[in-house]
Amino acid sequence: MPLTGVTILDLSRVLSGPFCTMLLADMGAEVIKIEALPDGDSVRKSGAMRDGLSYYFATFNRNKKSVTLNLKDEKGRELFEKLVLRADVVVDNYRPGVLDRLGLGRERLRSLQPKLICASISGFGESGPYRDRPAFDFIAQAMSGFMSMNGEKDGPPLRSGLPVSDLVAGLFAALGIVSALFRRERTGKGDVVCTSLTGAMIALLSYAASTYFATGEVLPRNGNDHPISSPYGLFNTRDGAIAIAPPTDAFFIRLMQALDLALLLDDPNYKTGQQRVARRAELNAQITERLSHHGNEYWIEKLNKAGVPCGPVYSVQDVFNDPQFADMAIDVPHPGMPPVRMLGFPLRFTEAECSIRRPSPRLGEHNDEVFGSLGLSPAEIKALRAQKIL
Amino acid sequence: MPLTGVTILDLSRVLSGPFCTMLLADMGAEVIKIEALPDGDSVRKSGAMRDGLSYYFATFNRNKKSVTLNLKDEKGRELFEKLVLRADVVVDNYRPGVLDRLGLGRERLRSLQPKLICASISGFGESGPYRDRPAFDFIAQAMSGFMSMNGEKDGPPLRSGLPVSDLVAGLFAALGIVSALFRRERTGKGDVVCTSLTGAMIALLSYAASTYFATGEVLPRNGNDHPISSPYGLFNTRDGAIAIAPPTDAFFIRLMQALDLALLLDDPNYKTGQQRVARRAELNAQITERLSHHGNEYWIEKLNKAGVPCGPVYSVQDVFNDPQFADMAIDVPHPGMPPVRMLGFPLRFTEAECSIRRPSPRLGEHNDEVFGSLGLSPAEIKALRAQKIL
Repeated sequence: MPLTGVTILDLSRVLSGPFCTMLLADMGAEVIKIEALPDGDSVRKSGAMRDGLSYYFATFNRNKKSVTLNLKDEKGRELFEKLVLRADVVVDNYRPGVLDRLGLGRERLRSLQPKLICASISGFGESGPYRDRPAFDFIAQAMSGFMSMNGEKDGPPLRSGLPVSDLVAGLFAALGIVSALFRRERTGKGDVVCTSLTGAMIALLSYAASTYFATGEVLPRNGNDHPISSPYGLFNTRDGAIAIAPPTDAFFIRLMQALDLALLLDDPNYKTGQQRVARRAELNAQITERLSHHGNEYWIEKLNKAGVPCGPVYSVQDVFNDPQFADMAIDVPHPGMPPVRMLGFPLRFTEAECSIRRPSPRLGEHNDEVFGSLGLSPAEIKALRAQKIL
Repeated sequence: MPLTGVTILDLSRVLSGPFCTMLLADMGAEVIKIEALPDGDSVRKSGAMRDGLSYYFATFNRNKKSVTLNLKDEKGRELFEKLVLRADVVVDNYRPGVLDRLGLGRERLRSLQPKLICASISGFGESGPYRDRPAFDFIAQAMSGFMSMNGEKDGPPLRSGLPVSDLVAGLFAALGIVSALFRRERTGKGDVVCTSLTGAMIALLSYAASTYFATGEVLPRNGNDHPISSPYGLFNTRDGAIAIAPPTDAFFIRLMQALDLALLLDDPNYKTGQQRVARRAELNAQITERLSHHGNEYWIEKLNKAGVPCGPVYSVQDVFNDPQFADMAIDVPHPGMPPVRMLGFPLRFTEAECSIRRPSPRLGEHNDEVFGSLGLSPAEIKALRAQKIL
C-alpha cells in the first residue's frame, strides 16, 4: 500500500481531520485515534444509527485504532509524548493555540522527535484577526465566497448540501501531509503543515476569483445556468430532467444535430457563445420542445452517443443502484453485526491499493495493545483506566 | 520545497488535471505542460481576459513550462517518449483509451520507464458502462448525488456555483500521485493511479451516504437548514444576514445566552435537538426577533465572543477585502504587463514552502529549452516547428 509503515497520531474530531486520516489510513497508514474521555469523538453518537453503531462514524474511522487519553493530566501527556517518539505524523483540528496551552505545542513535539510532521486544520488559519474564532463548515462556506456563488439567480446564497469545507480541507491536509512525508524521505527533515476550512474553500473559487481579479466583476449566482456558457443547464424531458453541458462550440454543434435542430446552426442569432448566453431563454425553449418528445433514457443514450456530455440528476439511492458506481459502496465486516455498508475509494492504484483492514474501533478498543507496546503492564493500564487517564 | 526534484509531464487540459498539477507545481514539482497545436489548452482563450491574458489560465498554469507537441505524429510521439525517460509522473485527463490509441498507453510508457507513475482523471473511471462517455463537471455533479442534496427545500436540484467536481477530482489525483511517489521512494516501484469526477464527488456524500446505508432514507435537499440540526441557517439581522451554526447542545446554550434567550433553555419544547428540528420555524422566529435589534457587525462580534460559530456571507470581493484572507490573493510578475493577481496557497508549511517560481507560460515557450535538453539542435527544433510537430 502507498503509505505502509507510516504511523499517525490523530487528535482530530468530527469530520475534517477524521476524513483526512481516513484517506491516509485507506492508503495503508496506521492511524491511532486519540479520544477524550468520557465519550470520545462526538460523531460516535451522531448521524443515522443501526445496530447501535453510527454509520457516519464507522465510515470516517475505518482502518483506525482507538485509544483514550486524558491530555489534561500530566501522566496522560507523558504517554502521549511516548507515542510521539514512535510516530511520523500528528494531526489535529483544534483551534490554534489549544495544544500549546496543553504543553503539547509543535515546538515541544518536534523537539522530542525532530523528524515529526505536525499537521493542523483550523477554521481560519494560524494568524489574522479571526484566528481564535470557533469555526464550522457552514461558516466557512459563508465566509469563503462559496455560498455567494451557490443558489438560484433570484434566491438567497445557499450552503452546499454536503459539508464541503470540512471535506476539502481534509483533502488538502492529506495532500500536505503526504507531501511532507515525501520530502522527509529525501531530506530526513520533519515539518509543520497547516490548512484551514476557509482557505481550502477560497482555493476553489477558480473562475469566480480570476474574473474578479481581472475585471473587478463579481459574478452572480446563476442557479443551474452557467454565467458564461449557453445552452447549459437542467432541461425537462418527457419524463424527467437531464443535465446538458456542451463545453465548446464543437459540442454545441453536436447537440443541435442530435436534437434535429441543425438549422439553428445557420441562424446568425446563435453563432457565438455570447449570443447564445444573451438568448438563453429562447434557445432553451427550443431545446426543451425537442426534448419533450422522449424520455430521459432515450435522450441520455442519444446525446452521449453524439458525444454531448449529459446525464440524469441522481438521488443518493440512484447512485448506489447504478452498476457504474457499484464499487463506491463497500461492505465492511464489523464484529457482532451484519457488514456495514460505507463509501468506497475514489483513488485506484494498479500496483499498490487502498483497502479495509479493520472496522471503526470501539472507544479505547486498542488501549491494551497500544499502551502495552509502550511497556505498560496490564495492571498499570488498569490503574490508569481507574484514574480516568485512559 | 516538498516536491523539489519531481518532474511531471502534464497532458491534461482545462481544469481538473491542470488544477492537480498546479498544486504539485506550487509545492516544487517541475511541471512540463504538453499542449496540442495549433492553440494549446482551450483555457488560454477562456474566462476573463486582461492585457490579452486569461487570468483563469494564468492561475491554473503558474509554475509550469509549456511545450507544444503533436502526439498524432510519429516523431512527436518519439520526442514524448524521450521526455518520459526523464520524468517521474505523467498526468492526463483524456477519456480512457485515448492514449492507448495513440500508442502511448500506460504499459508502453511504463515499459520505457519502470519507475514511472501514470495518473489519470476521467469522468466515470476506467471501467463500467459509462467509461467512454464524455464527462464534464456539471454532469458529475448531477450523477454523483451532489446536486440532489444542493438547493432549496422546494426548488430543483442545483449544481454548485463552482466547478467542484473538477477541483475535488484534481485534489484527489494530486493526493494519489504524491502517495505513489512516497511509495516509490521506499520501494523503488512506479504505479498507476486513477480517479474520476464522479468517484471524487461520490466520496463527498458523507452523512447523506451513511444515512442511506444505515436506514435506506434518502435525505432531502434542505436549503440552508441542516436536516438534523436546529437552529442552523442564515438569519436576518437589522442590516443583513449571518450564518449561525451551533453544532452541539453546548453551543446552543451559548447562543441562547448571547441572544438573551436563556429562558428558552428551560422550555421543555426545546430540550433536545430533535425537538428543535421539529419546532425550527418558531425557534428561528424568536432568534430573528432578537437579531433584528442590531446589525451584522454587532452580532458577529458578540456571538463569536460567546463561542458560537457565526459569520457573514461574503461575496468574492468581500473575501479579498478582508485582512484575514489577504494572503489568499497573490500578485505574480508577468513579463510585459502589470503583476497578475491570483489565488494563493491553501497549504502552509513551516520548513518547506509553496512558492511562485514562474508565471503561466506562453504556448510552446519552453520548446527550445526542453527539446534542446534532449539534444536537439536549434536547426532541428526549427524544422520540427515548420513541420508542425512542435
